[in-house]
Amino acid sequence: MNIAIVGIGLIGGSIGIRLKETQFAQKIIGVEKNEANQKKALQLGLVDEILPLEEALKQAKIIILTIPVDAIVKILPGLLDKVTDQVVIDMGSTKTNILRTIADHPKRGRYVAAHPMAGTEYSGPEAAVPGLFKEKVMVYVEAFKSDEDAFELADAVTEQLEMKTSFMNADEHDEHTAYVSHISHLTSFALALTVLEKEKSQGRIFELAGSGFQSTVRLAKSSPEMWTPIFKQNRENVLEVLEEHIKQLQNLYNKLAAEDYEGLHKLIKKSNKIKRIIK
Amino acid sequence: MNIAIVGIGLIGGSIGIRLKETQFAQKIIGVEKNEANQKKALQLGLVDEILPLEEALKQAKIIILTIPVDAIVKILPGLLDKVTDQVVIDMGSTKTNILRTIADHPKRGRYVAAHPMAGTEYSGPEAAVPGLFKEKVMVYVEAFKSDEDAFELADAVTEQLEMKTSFMNADEHDEHTAYVSHISHLTSFALALTVLEKEKSQGRIFELAGSGFQSTVRLAKSSPEMWTPIFKQNRENVLEVLEEHIKQLQNLYNKLAAEDYEGLHKLIKKSNKIKRIIK
Repeated sequence: MNIAIVGIGLIGGSIGIRLKETQFAQKIIGVEKNEANQKKALQLGLVDEILPLEEALKQAKIIILTIPVDAIVKILPGLLDKVTDQVVIDMGSTKTNILRTIADHPKRGRYVAAHPMAGTEYSGPEAAVPGLFKEKVMVYVEAFKSDEDAFELADAVTEQLEMKTSFMNADEHDEHTAYVSHISHLTSFALALTVLEKEKSQGRIFELAGSGFQSTVRLAKSSPEMWTPIFKQNRENVLEVLEEHIKQLQNLYNKLAAEDYEGLHKLIKKSNKIKRIIK
Repeated sequence: MNIAIVGIGLIGGSIGIRLKETQFAQKIIGVEKNEANQKKALQLGLVDEILPLEEALKQAKIIILTIPVDAIVKILPGLLDKVTDQVVIDMGSTKTNILRTIADHPKRGRYVAAHPMAGTEYSGPEAAVPGLFKEKVMVYVEAFKSDEDAFELADAVTEQLEMKTSFMNADEHDEHTAYVSHISHLTSFALALTVLEKEKSQGRIFELAGSGFQSTVRLAKSSPEMWTPIFKQNRENVLEVLEEHIKQLQNLYNKLAAEDYEGLHKLIKKSNKIKRIIK
């Protein structure tokens, strides 16, 4: 069985290298527009060969989409038009718009919506690592709308990646990811902008940056090409959570401005409840 | 030479255990009000014995203060009153107010203001680890106002902790730490509050929390007893950076609300410049 991966960056490349490692596929076909990335993907052994999408579709049983979410919205309907018994899996970080686009497509059953809750702040083929997905969660969205054999093939890939699974509907998925993934990126981007702004006048500022700063700001290294479309596709949820987050920051600001240290202490103590949830 | 550590938590305990490891001190004396922490400190071997402050002052050559910054402000003048040839080092995270308190003290020379840029989100004696400070930066503030022998003793401790050093004035220190440490904690507290608020109505939200979320929210586990005083002592700088940070978040919000994706992309790309600074 051949597998085609469309978009050989952090996610696509990490899937490719892992599936080669487990010998799950006979051949991994890469579909990649960027010439430099084509070369890197071959050099790093993430894929066996690079082909145009049309050709890859003919040769592969499973087609995995790991391109930015707006590009998925754009190409998915036309791709399904050409599908016979293949399976198309999208690994995008948002789902509502993508699913809406192909809701009534006659080949809807050949498509599986999945979202691996895994990643790093790095991007491109050189960021690919085989163990990226291990013990992370693969979220299936509206899995009941996929043909049984199509879902089973997708789930076989998930198993190769050594992932746990979770099932959700699209609204739920997009709302939850806004809270536990998309907002984290926005706070990091804003934190980086805040500090970079200050650095202009205070050059020595980063001498003091410790591990706390590093961990809160590291996501600000993430790719704008990947993240702008995610915010676009999940705009309403992201605006909601961003509004709430600004409100919480403003609340902390107000307590400090009013010298209400008892109130500030109370808010920090309340935030400590996050201990219940993260290790 | 005996060393007294006042406050046996994450920082004090980590200094104690490291100085015992290197056999730099003959005896490490712990000064600690909390009885449970006294017991833990002794059990964990962070200190050799627990004594009241008065007694510790008589026996020790070096007295290291690792209590919350408002407590440092409170006890430092009275402590210096009783000092003869000992050295008092404070390890607090803010400096302007502390230094103002003892600026004209006749024993000013016996005091060294230092801030180890190291820590974790955990607190208490059980959070202490001997390697906490290794290769981190110890910032000395207004070191030129300390007696030469006093500074040399403090710097010998820094050497035992295997730290690099940096020198600043108090204003500079407090401004910079607001930007690269204090704000990171506030964004984490606010992020935790945002998500915990949502969890009430959407129980499954944390199933999806990946490593990105974990790293941006982990500081929200930090102690309110330690952090409320830091924000209080560094109030003006913290308000300034918090205001700027809210402005940056609002700016991202506005771009997304206006569907200005080019503008959003530009801001994210700009924030990527943080790559120059952090690994």
